[in-house]
Amino acid sequence: MAKIYAYGIRKDEEPYLNEWAKNHADVTVDYTAELLTPETAAQAAGADGVVVYQQLDYTAETLQALADQGVTKMSLRNVGIDNIDMAKAKELGFEITNVPVYSPNAIAEHAAIQTARILRQSKKLDKKIENGDLRWAPTIGREVRDQVVGVVGTGHIGQVFMQIMEGFGAKVIAYDVFKDPELEKKGYYVSLDEIYAQADVISLHVPALESTIHMINDETIAKMKDDAVLVNVSRGPLVDTDAVIRALDSGKLFGFVMDTYEDEVGIFNEDWQGKEFPDARLNDLIHRDNVLVTPHTAFYTTHAVRNMVLKAFDNNLALVKGEEPETPVKVG
Amino acid sequence: MAKIYAYGIRKDEEPYLNEWAKNHADVTVDYTAELLTPETAAQAAGADGVVVYQQLDYTAETLQALADQGVTKMSLRNVGIDNIDMAKAKELGFEITNVPVYSPNAIAEHAAIQTARILRQSKKLDKKIENGDLRWAPTIGREVRDQVVGVVGTGHIGQVFMQIMEGFGAKVIAYDVFKDPELEKKGYYVSLDEIYAQADVISLHVPALESTIHMINDETIAKMKDDAVLVNVSRGPLVDTDAVIRALDSGKLFGFVMDTYEDEVGIFNEDWQGKEFPDARLNDLIHRDNVLVTPHTAFYTTHAVRNMVLKAFDNNLALVKGEEPETPVKVG
Ligand SMILES: NC(=O)c1ccc[n+]([C@@H]2O[C@H](COP(=O)([O-])OP(=O)(O)OC[C@H]3O[C@@H](n4cnc5c(N)ncnc54)[C@H](O)[C@@H]3O)[C@@H](O)[C@H]2O)c1
Ligand SMILES: NC(=O)c1ccc[n+]([C@@H]2O[C@H](COP(=O)([O-])OP(=O)(O)OC[C@H]3O[C@@H](n4cnc5c(N)ncnc54)[C@H](O)[C@@H]3O)[C@@H](O)[C@H]2O)c1
Repeated sequence: MAKIYAYGIRKDEEPYLNEWAKNHADVTVDYTAELLTPETAAQAAGADGVVVYQQLDYTAETLQALADQGVTKMSLRNVGIDNIDMAKAKELGFEITNVPVYSPNAIAEHAAIQTARILRQSKKLDKKIENGDLRWAPTIGREVRDQVVGVVGTGHIGQVFMQIMEGFGAKVIAYDVFKDPELEKKGYYVSLDEIYAQADVISLHVPALESTIHMINDETIAKMKDDAVLVNVSRGPLVDTDAVIRALDSGKLFGFVMDTYEDEVGIFNEDWQGKEFPDARLNDLIHRDNVLVTPHTAFYTTHAVRNMVLKAFDNNLALVKGEEPETPVKVG
Repeated sequence: MAKIYAYGIRKDEEPYLNEWAKNHADVTVDYTAELLTPETAAQAAGADGVVVYQQLDYTAETLQALADQGVTKMSLRNVGIDNIDMAKAKELGFEITNVPVYSPNAIAEHAAIQTARILRQSKKLDKKIENGDLRWAPTIGREVRDQVVGVVGTGHIGQVFMQIMEGFGAKVIAYDVFKDPELEKKGYYVSLDEIYAQADVISLHVPALESTIHMINDETIAKMKDDAVLVNVSRGPLVDTDAVIRALDSGKLFGFVMDTYEDEVGIFNEDWQGKEFPDARLNDLIHRDNVLVTPHTAFYTTHAVRNMVLKAFDNNLALVKGEEPETPVKVG
């Protein structure tokens, strides 16, 4: 009977792990909340594969400890593979999978909700109400339907975001280096400069590449309409944060939605309460009324987490059975 | 040359008043930020009509003072006419108009955004972030697309709300005493009990009538699914607030969106900072993590305010010219 051992299982993942186990009575599933380390690797003894998810590095030592237990089939519940010592993994003969797409809607919905909140001055209004100021003026909202929404990157997430914005009745225009034939037929595509010139809301849904890093900077912001709303739930480096702060200070930008941050590594997904906050610039952004910061949580929905767990286990079982997994990772 | 005098003009209304005046060069438009009272009525001297908007009563004395200036054509920028002494208005020969529909989207968008925020635990997450806790777990979100959304009342606002929810990918079901033929053809309508049994989100878009007052009570809440989200941006009396609080306390309801409140008159649109807050129950609701209270501000968008101003002036000009206004109010 096949045996899969899972590391770093959070409370919110347990129901989906149990769902998978129930549907795979022929597989023994065991798990721990602990992360995979040289010390915890021994817990996988007797398993045919492991399912993992952690920011903590998969070091040479960790991989060796796992291989020492005879386990070299490893399935990530997330996308990122930067923290794996690939040279060592290759040397030890590891087979690895990840989950590149788990819920584009999770991220697109978050972008849409936060965009709408900026337009409504929701943070300012919420604070007024908490403080007992129940006057509605002057916290007036802009309706989503009145906005021209410019979507940069029409991949999985960008396309869902477009649908949501259209449900509100907004006019959507888009830019992508690879044009989706369906979207092109419908006439969505314009140039990037046309996005900057026409859009009231600009939402980024592209990967961080040489061509996209700091694509939002002093120069491109200057091309934007006054009172534009900038949305980055994709990758921190797409945006020159200092340039955005200048544009918030000058009033050029109406607001900023930020789920990812240039310097987020080591800062996001940590608890800084009672400690010195590590980044003054981030602290300033968090406390602005027209900025909505979330710590890379756009993906964090029950739908996404369920898919991350189920897909990782499916992948791992495929590896264990010697079948082709749906989303293998190139090792080495 | 026709002359219209406007009372209670707020800063956010001025651009639209100026827009209307510019497009009606043949009309003299003048205005004040002051409300219409027996004292300020004299400011309308020489005008052919007045445009007004206030919670303050249009008393017999106020109406008389206006009539004394020869002004009996009065156009409200809002819907509500409860604060007009209609007997006196009739006696003095007043002609009155209001603006019943100015932007269904303003209210529908607000309902949609706040609903999505409840599903995302946005208030809790925002507070965590403000306090420097940047961990994402356990504040997990539910995606809008995974919800069955039950819409009670498919009038102007309900229908826009349905479109927005469908843009997110949610399944929408609806109930109304008068079925819209188009919606019926598309199979949206179910019974009210089916709404309670099937919906994850229940949003009310009906007027307050004998048949709808306290339609949400202990009994109907008991019929709902566990973890349902209740949304009331329509009229406070639709909801038995104590019953909702019991359901929030027991965990039956996942959250509550509240833009209108049974006891809102005299409390909403006031500044209670530095004063004793007048309603302990409301105060409790405001400070709950899974309740989003707004003080009847769903309507308050630039689009709505523009329409309120333009339509009220259009109506008033029609009265002044002796033409039929678009939305007359029955006087008496
Ligand atoms: N915040 C979160 O929680 C979260 C979660 C998952 C993904 N993301 C990020 O969201 C972004 C989009 O993800 P996706 O799944 O939609 O990716 P995708 O690969 O499906 O789409 C990306 C699109 O960007 C286009 N593109 C590439 N370079 C471009 C350029 N220079 N200019 C314009 N378009 C360009 C591609 O052609 C493609 O259509 C990625 O950056 C990803 O890292 C964020
Ligand atoms: N929060 C705000 O700022 C704000 C602003 C404007 C309007 N509103 C409120 O929103 C609500 C809806 O407004 P609208 O413009 O869509 O009105 P509408 O008249 O267009 O639609 C109301 C619908 O309710 C239906 N209805 C009546 N009685 C019913 C019952 N017993 N059960 C089911 N359906 C019933 C009607 O048939 C109609 O289709 C109203 O209560 C209005 O007061 C709130």
